[in-house]
Amino acid sequence: MSQASFKEFLWKNYQIAFKNQDLLQEALTQRNYLNEHPQEHGRDYQRLEFLGDAVMQEAVTEYLFKRYPNWHEGQLTEMRITMVQTRSFAHFARVIHLDEGIRLGKGEEMNGARNRDSLLEDIWEAFIGALYLDQGSQVLRQLLEKTLFAAIDDNFFDQFIDFKSRLQERLQVKGAVAIEYVTLKEEVLPDHIQRFEVSVSVDGQELAQGSGRSIKDAEKAAARLALQELDNKK
Amino acid sequence: MSQASFKEFLWKNYQIAFKNQDLLQEALTQRNYLNEHPQEHGRDYQRLEFLGDAVMQEAVTEYLFKRYPNWHEGQLTEMRITMVQTRSFAHFARVIHLDEGIRLGKGEEMNGARNRDSLLEDIWEAFIGALYLDQGSQVLRQLLEKTLFAAIDDNFFDQFIDFKSRLQERLQVKGAVAIEYVTLKEEVLPDHIQRFEVSVSVDGQELAQGSGRSIKDAEKAAARLALQELDNKK
Repeated sequence: MSQASFKEFLWKNYQIAFKNQDLLQEALTQRNYLNEHPQEHGRDYQRLEFLGDAVMQEAVTEYLFKRYPNWHEGQLTEMRITMVQTRSFAHFARVIHLDEGIRLGKGEEMNGARNRDSLLEDIWEAFIGALYLDQGSQVLRQLLEKTLFAAIDDNFFDQFIDFKSRLQERLQVKGAVAIEYVTLKEEVLPDHIQRFEVSVSVDGQELAQGSGRSIKDAEKAAARLALQELDNKK
Repeated sequence: MSQASFKEFLWKNYQIAFKNQDLLQEALTQRNYLNEHPQEHGRDYQRLEFLGDAVMQEAVTEYLFKRYPNWHEGQLTEMRITMVQTRSFAHFARVIHLDEGIRLGKGEEMNGARNRDSLLEDIWEAFIGALYLDQGSQVLRQLLEKTLFAAIDDNFFDQFIDFKSRLQERLQVKGAVAIEYVTLKEEVLPDHIQRFEVSVSVDGQELAQGSGRSIKDAEKAAARLALQELDNKK
């Protein structure tokens, strides 16, 4: 695990090689590392994080705006919130092996900061800021197409969405309603995996059925499908 | 006052002419206008506002990042907050005569919405979103150079900054201090304009002097100069 292997990973998987290595170093350097290495004259990642935060927000906004021409601003905002958040950015920082490249202070290293979501989020934003400056918006966009944007099609962001709350909010717009989740079936598949089937009803009328490996997952799936049904009816 | 005169103003002063007139219309249209004109099939400005908000944030962030290479992220954030805010955007909406182009519902028109800062902020963002889509980031950047970014050199944003609070925060970082403003001079100039001179001291030591047409303005000027002095000493 080293910066060299991170750079190799970036080149092999995304054909990205920084022209300005100092810029990449800045994005990967935590403040205490500099305190412990007074001979280094670089900066820590915080200025680049300031830039990258805005660059990420703009890139995701523009992508969603163009991808979903029929969504209204409320739907776009909801989707952006699920994509632009700590757990999401930390995940993609790990996907591109950014965690291997970070230059940490010793104390932070011992405290496990290298695997902490909040640090990985910061470093992801700083890296995006550096990439934007070094390679331009086209290369940045290509990286996001292969990571964050591709994840939409894999339903990756569903894990961050509370579909049951969202369904409730949607249905309660016109006043109080009774939403009921009923477990229809519970079975054990040959490989010892449990499978639940759940239906969701509002005021006694079934909206959708969902399945999952736990009752919670099945209810979430049912709520997600019910929301889709409601969207299609509009 | 009409859309035609707004478009003429945009062309004469900024050499901007939209290729896609529907997009410009969308940015200028308030929801109730559409309700009152059911024959129109366009949308209101809200989707474009969602885009333009992120585009503005990114453009200002990138500009400040590059203009002030020695500022740390705290200073950059402070400056961005003063630039990206309702009063600022409403001002520049008026500067480019956007207010003349808005298509409002009758009720809003009667309630004076055309001159309301919150609406002008929304329309500014929607217009920026439309401009970005229609003309690209270079043209957008040129418009901002002539408006928002030029205003930095005119100290336009100073009016939004509470320099006295900022000085207090800066000085109190290392513990409690006694900050004192003393009026040194009060005079009436030939044209009946009052002029005040104020000094600001911390723990009995003078930091700076400032002048203005009221004691409040003079104190603000003194605080601003004191902050500059502190920055220069670093």
